[in-house]
Order: sequence, then C-alpha cells, then structure tokens
Amino acid sequence: LIQPRERKQVPAQQRVRDILDSRLVQRAIIVVIVINSVTMGCETSTALMAQTGSLLHVIDRIALVLFSAEIAARLYAYRGAFFADPWNWFDTIVVAVAVVPATGPASVLRALRILRALRLVSAIPSMRRVVGALLAAVPGMGSIIGLLTLMIYIAAVIATRLFGDILPERFADLPSSLFTLFQIMTGDDWGNVAQEVMQQKPWAWVFFIAYILMSTFVALNLFIAVVVNAMDDAEASPAETRMQAELEAMHTELATVNAKLDQLLVREHTSASSSGDDW
Amino acid sequence: LIQPRERKQVPAQQRVRDILDSRLVQRAIIVVIVINSVTMGCETSTALMAQTGSLLHVIDRIALVLFSAEIAARLYAYRGAFFADPWNWFDTIVVAVAVVPATGPASVLRALRILRALRLVSAIPSMRRVVGALLAAVPGMGSIIGLLTLMIYIAAVIATRLFGDILPERFADLPSSLFTLFQIMTGDDWGNVAQEVMQQKPWAWVFFIAYILMSTFVALNLFIAVVVNAMDDAEASPAETRMQAELEAMHTELATVNAKLDQLLVREHTSASSSGDDW
Amino acid sequence: LIQPRERKQVPAQQRVRDILDSRLVQRAIIVVIVINSVTMGCETSTALMAQTGSLLHVIDRIALVLFSAEIAARLYAYRGAFFADPWNWFDTIVVAVAVVPATGPASVLRALRILRALRLVSAIPSMRRVVGALLAAVPGMGSIIGLLTLMIYIAAVIATRLFGDILPERFADLPSSLFTLFQIMTGDDWGNVAQEVMQQKPWAWVFFIAYILMSTFVALNLFIAVVVNAMDDAEASPAETRMQAELEAMHTELATVNAKLDQLLVREHTSASSSGDDW
Amino acid sequence: LIQPRERKQVPAQQRVRDILDSRLVQRAIIVVIVINSVTMGCETSTALMAQTGSLLHVIDRIALVLFSAEIAARLYAYRGAFFADPWNWFDTIVVAVAVVPATGPASVLRALRILRALRLVSAIPSMRRVVGALLAAVPGMGSIIGLLTLMIYIAAVIATRLFGDILPERFADLPSSLFTLFQIMTGDDWGNVAQEVMQQKPWAWVFFIAYILMSTFVALNLFIAVVVNAMDDAEASPAETRMQAELEAMHTELATVNAKLDQLLVREHTSASSSGDDW
Repeated sequence: LIQPRERKQVPAQQRVRDILDSRLVQRAIIVVIVINSVTMGCETSTALMAQTGSLLHVIDRIALVLFSAEIAARLYAYRGAFFADPWNWFDTIVVAVAVVPATGPASVLRALRILRALRLVSAIPSMRRVVGALLAAVPGMGSIIGLLTLMIYIAAVIATRLFGDILPERFADLPSSLFTLFQIMTGDDWGNVAQEVMQQKPWAWVFFIAYILMSTFVALNLFIAVVVNAMDDAEASPAETRMQAELEAMHTELATVNAKLDQLLVREHTSASSSGDDW
Repeated sequence: LIQPRERKQVPAQQRVRDILDSRLVQRAIIVVIVINSVTMGCETSTALMAQTGSLLHVIDRIALVLFSAEIAARLYAYRGAFFADPWNWFDTIVVAVAVVPATGPASVLRALRILRALRLVSAIPSMRRVVGALLAAVPGMGSIIGLLTLMIYIAAVIATRLFGDILPERFADLPSSLFTLFQIMTGDDWGNVAQEVMQQKPWAWVFFIAYILMSTFVALNLFIAVVVNAMDDAEASPAETRMQAELEAMHTELATVNAKLDQLLVREHTSASSSGDDW
Repeated sequence: LIQPRERKQVPAQQRVRDILDSRLVQRAIIVVIVINSVTMGCETSTALMAQTGSLLHVIDRIALVLFSAEIAARLYAYRGAFFADPWNWFDTIVVAVAVVPATGPASVLRALRILRALRLVSAIPSMRRVVGALLAAVPGMGSIIGLLTLMIYIAAVIATRLFGDILPERFADLPSSLFTLFQIMTGDDWGNVAQEVMQQKPWAWVFFIAYILMSTFVALNLFIAVVVNAMDDAEASPAETRMQAELEAMHTELATVNAKLDQLLVREHTSASSSGDDW
Repeated sequence: LIQPRERKQVPAQQRVRDILDSRLVQRAIIVVIVINSVTMGCETSTALMAQTGSLLHVIDRIALVLFSAEIAARLYAYRGAFFADPWNWFDTIVVAVAVVPATGPASVLRALRILRALRLVSAIPSMRRVVGALLAAVPGMGSIIGLLTLMIYIAAVIATRLFGDILPERFADLPSSLFTLFQIMTGDDWGNVAQEVMQQKPWAWVFFIAYILMSTFVALNLFIAVVVNAMDDAEASPAETRMQAELEAMHTELATVNAKLDQLLVREHTSASSSGDDW
C-alpha cells in the first residue's frame, strides 16, 4: 500500500512486510498448515505411528519452526502494530501450546496442539471474515443468553432439591443437574429422564414440560435475534437497489428543475425591472 | 425527574423514591440478588451445607430482610402506583414464597425459593426489556398455540382408545397419552414408541407419521409467525433509512420548486396586469 | 347484512340464516363443542366411565343431535351454497363419523369420533383463518415435497437392497425401510441404526451421512420456501408504510407543480401573443 | 422455437428435436420413469419377486431400452450441445449404471440402479428448477461449511487423543471420532456418550458442551446465510412493487415538468430578446 519512491530507502521492515504479504508466502503458509493438520490427524492412528511415526514427528517439528519463524518475522515487520491485531494473538497462542512441556497434569495440552489447524482460519481471508461476522453477532445476544443461563441455573437448583433423592445419577448435585438440564434443553433423551422421575413424583411433568416450553421459547427468540441482526446487516435487496437508483435519478432531475426556475426568476426580475417598475 | 425547588418541601416519599432509584442502591440490590442466588445454589450441596450451613442460612436471612425492606420502601414511596407495575407484583410474590411456612404438602415451596433469583430480571433494565419483548410476542401466537393444543388433545384421545391396551405404560390414560404425544412432537424417542405399537397394529405408522408431519408443520408456522412479527417490529434497514433520507431531501426541494413557481405566477400576474389587460 | 325492509316479507330461509349467524347461536355452538370434546376425553378413563358413563353418553347424544340439527338448518338456509363452503363438508363428515355403526373392522371409527372437536376450528373465525393460511402455504411447497418424497423412496430402495439382510427389523422390506428412513430424517436414534449396520458394512456411514445431509438440506429449503412466502404475504413494514405515505405526498405536490406550470405556459402564450407576434 | 419456413428443408436433426420436446414424448418419458421406479421398488419384495419376478425384469429391460433410445436420440439431435447441459450428463450416468455388469465388488451398483428414479427430476421442469436453486445456494455457504468441517476435524483429533482409551467403541480412531462427533452435532444420543466418558473424566463436559454450543452456533449461521440468500433472490414484495410503480409515475411527471420549463425558458428568451435587449 505504501509506494516507496526510491528503492534504496525501503527499510528492511517494509521489505519483510512485503514478503509476508506476498501471494506466494501466503499460499505456502496455508499449505504448511494443511500438511501439519493432516500429520497431526495421522498421529492419532497407532498403526500409522508404528510405521511412519518418526517421519510425522519430523514434519511436525519443521511446521512448528516455520510457524515460529513466520510469527517472529511478523513481529519484526509490524512491531507494536503486531499486538493490535487479535488474529496475531490467536496465532501466537495456538503455536505456543506446542512449545509448553506437556507432562503430568498438563498432558491435555498435547491434545490441544491440533488447535494449530485453526490457523487456517486466520490465514484465509474469507474464513477470517466469516468468523468475524460470527463473533460480531455475539454481543447482541447478551441479554437473551443471560436470561437462558439464569433459567437453567434456577431450574437446576429446583431439580436438585426436588429430584436429587429420586434420580441421583442425574440430579445428585448442582453440576449434574446443570448438565442434565442442558441435555434436556437440546431435546436429547428427555422423555426417559422425565418418566423415571414421574414414577415416584407423578406431578413432575409440570416441571419438565414448563422447562422445555420456556427454554425452547427463549432459545427460539435468541435465534430470531440473530436472524434479524443478520438481515439488517445484509446488503440492500435488488428491489431496494433499483429504487435507490431511481430516487437518485429523480433527485438530479429535480435539481435541474430548480436551477431552471432560478434562471426564469432572474430573467423575469430583469425583464420586469427593465420593462416597468410600477409595482 | 421532578426538580424540587426548595429542599425543605421535598416530601419524605419523594426522598425515598430518589434513594431507591439511585445508581448505588440499584447496584447494591443486584449484588445482593447475585450473592443470594449463589448461596441458594450452595445450599443444594450436602458437603457445603455440613461445613458452612449456618453461614449460608444467615446470608439467606439477611438477603430476605433486605428484599422485604426494599419492597416495603417501594410500597411506601409509590403507594397506589406500586401495584400498577406488574414487576412489583412479581418481586413481592417471589420474595413472599420464602416467608410461607414450607412444611408438609407445601414443602415444594422450599425448592421454589430460588425463583428469587429471577429478581435479577426485574432489577436489570435490559433483561426486563428482553422479557417484555418475549411476553409481547405471546398474544400474536394465540390462535396457532390453540390449534396445536387442540391437535395434541385430539391425538391423545385417539391414541388412548387405539393403543391404550397395547402400550399401557405410554397410552394407558389421557394424561399419559398427552405426555407421550408432547414427547413425540419434540422428536424424542418417537421411533421406539411407534415400533412397539406397530408390532401389534402394523398400520399404526399412519397415526404417528400423520401426527408428526402435522404437529411439525403447525409448530413451524408458529415459529414463522414469531419471526415475521419480530421482523415487523425491527427498525428500518440501512437501505430503507437512506431511501427515507433521500425522499425527505427531495420533498424539501420540491417544496422550494413549488414556492418559486408561486413567486413566478404572482409576478407574471402583476406584470401581465401592469403591461396590458387585453385578455 | 341484507336489510329486510318489511318484516313480513323476510323468507323463512333468511330468518334461519340470521339465527344461525347470530352471536348467541355461534357462542352456544362453541360451548357445545367444548363440552362434547371434554366428555369424549372423559370417556377414555375407565374410572370415570364406571361412575358417570351413562351421563357422558347422554351428553354425547345431545351434542350429536344439536350438531346434526345445526347442519340441517344450515343446509336449509343456504341450499346449494352450503356445498360451496369446504368447511361445511368438513363439519358434515366429522359429525357423520359418529352415526356410522362402528363394529368389526370399522371399530377404528369409534376412536375417530373425537375429530368432532375439530369443529372448534370451523366455529371460531380466527382459527379458521389460521388453518386457511396453513393450507394456502402447501401448494407452494409442492415441488420440494415431491423431491423429498422421491429422495426417501430412492434411499429406501437402496437401504432395503444393501442392509435388508443385516438389520431385517429395520430394513427387511420397502415399508420398513421407508419408516426407518423417515425416522432417521427426523434425527431420532439414527446413530444406533447406523452403528448396527456399520458393524458388518463399515462403509455404510457414507449412505447414512449422505442421506442425512441431503434430506436435512432439502427440508431446510422447504422451510425457507415457507418463510419467504410468509414474508411476501406479510403487510408492509412500518418503514415501507412511511415511505409510501411520503411518496404519495410528493406525487400530489408534483402534480401541483405541473398544474402551475401549465398556468404559466398559458399566460406566457397569451401575454406573448398579445404583446407581439414577431416570432 | 425455430419456425421452419419450408417443410422440406427441416433437417432430420431438427425434426428429432421437435419430437423429443413435444408434450406427448415428454409425458411418455415421465410415465416410463414412474413405472420403472415402482417396479424397481417391487423388486425389493421377495414375495412379489417370486410371483411376478420375470414380468418386473421385462418391464425393467424395456424401460432401460427406452431410456437409452431417448438419450441416443437427444445426442443425435443436439450433437455437441448435448454435452453442454449437465442434466444430460446426469441422465446418461444414471442410465449407464444399469449396463455395468454388477458382480463381485461392484454388486453395490445393483442397488444404485434405483437412482434412475432421479430422472424424474430432470424430466419435470419445476423439479429441475428447485434442484437448480438448491445447488445454486451451495457456493455461498462454502466458507461456513469449511469452518464447520475444520471444527469437526479438530474436535475429532482431540476426542481421539483424550477419550480413545475410555470409550474405544466411539473414539478409537479418527474415523470413529468423526462419525461420533457428527452424530453429536445432530443432537442424537449425545447425553449418553458424554456421560459414559464423564464417568472416568468428570471434566469431559467442558469438551462436549463447548463442541455442541460452537457447532450449533456455526450451523445456525450456515442456516441464516441460506435464508438471507433466499430472501435476496426473492422477488420484490408487494409493497416494494407498489413503491416502484409510484416512483416511475413520478419520474415521468417530473420529466414533463422539466420539458415544460424548457419551453418557458425558450419563450422567455425569445420574448425578452424581442421586447428589449437592454441587459
């Protein structure tokens, strides 16, 4: 974007930036991400690991080095601006996960190394835009998500108190109840849960049906809020575009009419004052 | 909102109102609600109750006193207007549940004390608006909800008569059938229910598939009614806003054109009458 | 609606029509339908039948007589026009079901007598409108429903051929496969069906996942077709209403401008011809 | 569409084209497709095959000959243009499946012969349009489908690593995990899978709930993208149509105003220059 007038004066920083943004380097990075994602997938197969385990590890190491080099280069090229782009933070964290020694309680981090495949999102602009749009939709849903969370919490406390003794494997404590009620909200297997409870407390259907109706209704409105937002953000429809074009054409024409009337008024005035001033 | 000119003359009632509406008091009430909601959640854990049971009870008592005091203050401050706001009724009932002695058959009320957490909705304006919007959507769905209820009732009577003997644990009487058919409408485990019935009455698939198609179709239209309502209530889209601005600008310009023409007509008239009256 | 000028000349037919359309009779019919629906629900309970069986039967008989009388009166009042309204056909069939002797193979008709409760739909205008709107949406979905049916049929033939031997209780013949695939399309328990098949034919996931993706996608588009139709039928949004009002106001003003210009042109012409004809 | 002026000069190619496009031939082909689809369905029934197997085979042979003849005729009539229409490719492949000898590993092809029923789609124009619209919607969903696929892949790698030892029948290797996670995304039986894992790794709910929330949210946005696209493609609403008509009427009137002003200006100029040139 910045046009350097004299070749010599291009600073090293700018040159690195140009290289990073070049089509070739962008493509190469995407290829490395895809290859690395596939090798990490292969690593889950014990058969493949027995045969080609060392090769897979070597590829993984090389990919890691390339990613680290790319991030370092970007950090050098953009300095402070590097930290302003959240996608840079994302890339750094996702790559850093692999460097952390994953032993003992941190062994889960080993499994999270595949999150590196998400770099595909930050590397492909169209994916970046989609994720950006998804995240932009979240704040508008804040109040409804809050309401839904509150509803599940209240229902979980009630269910723990009422059904904790009857169906301890589902409602023994608050966390179990929260999980069960989330499951019921998704409509999975709720009939069985309800019927097991109803064998001892026949009126329990009131709780379950009220909970399903209310949570579904709120979730439906959450969904509608997202749709209405998306509609508002959508570009104008063809019909609207045509109407806007028409309106602008009319506006131009109206301005011409106005200008011509001004001309007429000036002439009238001149001709009136020249021909006679008796008014 | 009312600006008292002389400090002395501010009635006590108004002062209480100002205090209740002050940012500080509003925040404090929200904090108390959140703390109380958490402690009521903790009360469901036997481990936590064994250790900190008495503390939790004390917090609960204090919260209850504060809520009662707040409601009393509001009642004092607003008098008759207090009962005009349905949220006040809501707060009062939800707090009153805790005061009712919950023994014997009323022991369910103990579990319902957590409904007090819903005071969060009445205390936070944005939540209040969301719930208001949700409730406002209900009347428009009246006819479709009525139709859906009628359909489930009819299907339940038919199912009880036809399948009551075959699958008594599901269709023994009207309440069981209503519950089972509600479950089938949510799509939960309907295949198993249908197949158990079909083992003895192979033509039963007609009933189940007809019921699922019809209830899904009506539920879908219920959903569409809500979406279309929400769309209508939504503000104008950016395209529409721009078109409206354009229209208004044109309207103004057209008014200028009209005024100039009036000027011209008047002058013409004058000049015509002054220069010669031969027509 | 027709104002009879002379009381004497009102034909009996018209008087019956007025009585049938009167608010009182309409209300009474609705009450009878509701009572009859409730008693038919009560008839499914053996306990209630033992106690109040004969009473329930008497109410049912009376309701049946009233319905028959109403239909006969409508037939008398409207003559040929009676058969033009599909709701009249609906009412007649639904009532006639009860008169057919329900013995032997026709015993299912006994259970269908509750369909009489659907008369509530034909008796309440708002319900009638909702059902009318639902039915009006069906023709527009014809092609997509046809496509969906074709897809299920093809998938059922393939599944019967491929999986008939492996899972005979699900895919033994075409009807079983059709039922199972309809169940899978609703998302109910499809994982278990697929996994049982995959134990013997590991590649079967291709069939199931392709079927689910395609049927869901087509069903989604069926749904969208309904929404888009509903949107088109919806009234103009407030923004559009305001814009239309603005446009009309501008149109009127533009017509005034045009008329004034005509006036000017006439005067110019007159004044030009009177002052001098040198052009 | 091409009106041949002299009967004699119509080339044979054109005559074949006219015959193929005639209403009668089109209808006949549809009838053959329907009959053949039904007979292929009947072939799945061993009872029907025992009785009428040879008849069904003969009908199948005849249909196949007719289809082949039709495709050959179309190939002759349209020459190169035949290959430009993807529906022709589709018809050819679907018919060719039956000709391939289906023995040994290719026995699956036998089951795929029913795909010939899809010729109904290519033979009925309205079905063709529906499928065309469905396929046209796919490219716009590319990025979101890519994101969803990436999410499932990453989740599958993580699940295989973390839960492979605990629940080998679900998460033993990458393909199993992919299948299980697709099943979980459709909401089928996910509660049981999660609970089996949670018995050994109690924190596993984090994975399952995060996965369900994220995949549902992305799938929801995929759905919204389709709806918004469909809305944009939809014709203008009645309100918009009326507004466009109004706008066009105003535009015409404005043009008249402009023309009249031009007339006035010309006259003024002439009258001004004729009456006096003192300015």
